[in-house]
Amino acid sequence: MTGPRYTPLVAALPATVPFIGPETQERARGRPFAARLGANENVFGPSPRAIEAMAQAAREVWMYGDPENHDLRHALAAHHGVGADNVVVGEGIDGLLGYLVRMLIAPGDAVATSEGAYPTFNFHVAGFGGVLHKVPYKGDHEDPDALITRAAETGAKLIYLANPDNPMGSWHDAATIARMIKAVPEGALLVLDEAYVDLAPAGTAPAITPEDPRVIRMRTFSKGYGMAGARVGYAIGSAPLIEGFNKIRNHFGMSRIAQAGALAALADQAWLAEVQTRVAEARDRIAAIVRANGLAPLPSATNFVTIDCGGDGAFARRVLAELIARDIFVRMPFVAPHDRCIRVSAGRAEDLAAFEAALPAALDAARRSAG
Amino acid sequence: MTGPRYTPLVAALPATVPFIGPETQERARGRPFAARLGANENVFGPSPRAIEAMAQAAREVWMYGDPENHDLRHALAAHHGVGADNVVVGEGIDGLLGYLVRMLIAPGDAVATSEGAYPTFNFHVAGFGGVLHKVPYKGDHEDPDALITRAAETGAKLIYLANPDNPMGSWHDAATIARMIKAVPEGALLVLDEAYVDLAPAGTAPAITPEDPRVIRMRTFSKGYGMAGARVGYAIGSAPLIEGFNKIRNHFGMSRIAQAGALAALADQAWLAEVQTRVAEARDRIAAIVRANGLAPLPSATNFVTIDCGGDGAFARRVLAELIARDIFVRMPFVAPHDRCIRVSAGRAEDLAAFEAALPAALDAARRSAG
Repeated sequence: MTGPRYTPLVAALPATVPFIGPETQERARGRPFAARLGANENVFGPSPRAIEAMAQAAREVWMYGDPENHDLRHALAAHHGVGADNVVVGEGIDGLLGYLVRMLIAPGDAVATSEGAYPTFNFHVAGFGGVLHKVPYKGDHEDPDALITRAAETGAKLIYLANPDNPMGSWHDAATIARMIKAVPEGALLVLDEAYVDLAPAGTAPAITPEDPRVIRMRTFSKGYGMAGARVGYAIGSAPLIEGFNKIRNHFGMSRIAQAGALAALADQAWLAEVQTRVAEARDRIAAIVRANGLAPLPSATNFVTIDCGGDGAFARRVLAELIARDIFVRMPFVAPHDRCIRVSAGRAEDLAAFEAALPAALDAARRSAG
Repeated sequence: MTGPRYTPLVAALPATVPFIGPETQERARGRPFAARLGANENVFGPSPRAIEAMAQAAREVWMYGDPENHDLRHALAAHHGVGADNVVVGEGIDGLLGYLVRMLIAPGDAVATSEGAYPTFNFHVAGFGGVLHKVPYKGDHEDPDALITRAAETGAKLIYLANPDNPMGSWHDAATIARMIKAVPEGALLVLDEAYVDLAPAGTAPAITPEDPRVIRMRTFSKGYGMAGARVGYAIGSAPLIEGFNKIRNHFGMSRIAQAGALAALADQAWLAEVQTRVAEARDRIAAIVRANGLAPLPSATNFVTIDCGGDGAFARRVLAELIARDIFVRMPFVAPHDRCIRVSAGRAEDLAAFEAALPAALDAARRSAG
């Protein structure tokens, strides 16, 4: 018995996961983390109304969710001033990125992104046989001009840019992004990942022009709305592109509970404003803690602060390991020169107190093991 | 601006949905259904412990779910007496079918299924460019011998069979399925969709032999466990095949709430037994109602009863339309000769009372419009 015959593409892929979850690390360590500050989760959580809506929906979970996600799509359309046919809801931005790549990328097709940008996007591109063409960041920012140039050179069908950026926390203003959209080469599509935009300064997101065929905007309830565990992302784009998702998506893939929670969360913009305030306070607190330890916090338009540890990648990896050994779950950028940094999510006072308590000894241990 | 360039495969696909949701019909009708008996949902719902676990998890939804689904996979492995590396959890059987087809089917690859079997499987095969080779049912049963023969003739990489079957409610005994597994041609994989098996008579499911590379078993929390809206399916197969899902799946795609709910539902086997009793009673009630109206209920190993309306497809479609017009949500098989039937899900007493009240007039109207 030879067993199943995989496609050549899938046979050649590694079994991989873009991110190791904190639970996996906890199982390996044999004990839980004291502070969960590595996955840019929003510890302030969703609106209490969303929690109540999800608890209520759990009692009705014998019913499939609406496969059209009608109510949520229409609420999102009204919120953003676009048509409901400009909105598709999916299983997180990760799920939508997978669908989008599948729609556009056949083996050998070119894709442009930045060296060190979101690995899950790269996972999907590799999974459909696309060829990634990467440009460096410009300092700590993704470089729109370099991405456009590389896309034009390679005939890329997709261009990925996150604004604000993960893992660096940096951002471009709306005018810069609007110029980038105008410069998208003929036949290319800009994937503008705005997962963190709900936590960014006003003026970060360009106006949404839903019928522009050059850009698709990706948004999520995982960050500002505090519902990472519910898996609700959405995309805004031209109606023909959005309709294309219906050719391939898992139509009944959205949880009824998640749909109800997202609808309630969207309706509670006062809670989002409160979260924005708490996240800003947490960013300031993280910056103060790391400055007090002689490190440099990078400016952030997200719910995390990327911290320059002042050495090379090897040193930052030691700092990360020492923090994890002290029960602080944090992550760091994967590639140089950004791997001089670690990345700490906005936490509650008690989370950041645990980080503050652990950092001096972690730094000391990292420095001693260097010598 | 030409907009994005789709792959040739996706460009050629229709925008389609395998099933229209009842919410879509309600919006079109302008009023809700009185009884929701069309989607084979389990109106008796999940264990109260599962509802409580989901409500609790909603309060922790700021955290991503464990991307390894560790606790649920291990509980399922223990429940079925297999290894945790024989189990993959995904966004419903629909989601897992999509991943499986992607792993095995490239454009032009052959797939064997039955004419009138699960359309969502066909949706995925078409979506990856596979070529469907269909065999007829034998009476009201899927035909294992014909499927095996057709698979051998066409070099099919996948063979689909549901046991029990949807939409006919029929089933094969374990020995028949075990013989089919032994007959799977070299290099083919049998997708044994056991979505309804928790509601079938003892002796329907063959013993699970997890390392057999010829079969993958698909199970779900949507039917017996009453959690259709949570989107939790799982597959049991050989470790290398199960590991293959990690090459392509949406690793963070499972809701934290759904994982918690499924874990609690699995632990409450007493509730499942109670549901089995209620479903059996409802099947008997449906059979009595339809017999009293001169129609023939088919034997069922599921939570629905397929009803022979005693005429042709056109007549059954009229009966269906007249029931829907009377606020009873039901569905029917798509293809002849099964489209002589309609399909009614096991409901509560009040749901079936509404069906009972509507059926005589629906039949009368269907007969009158024939003349």
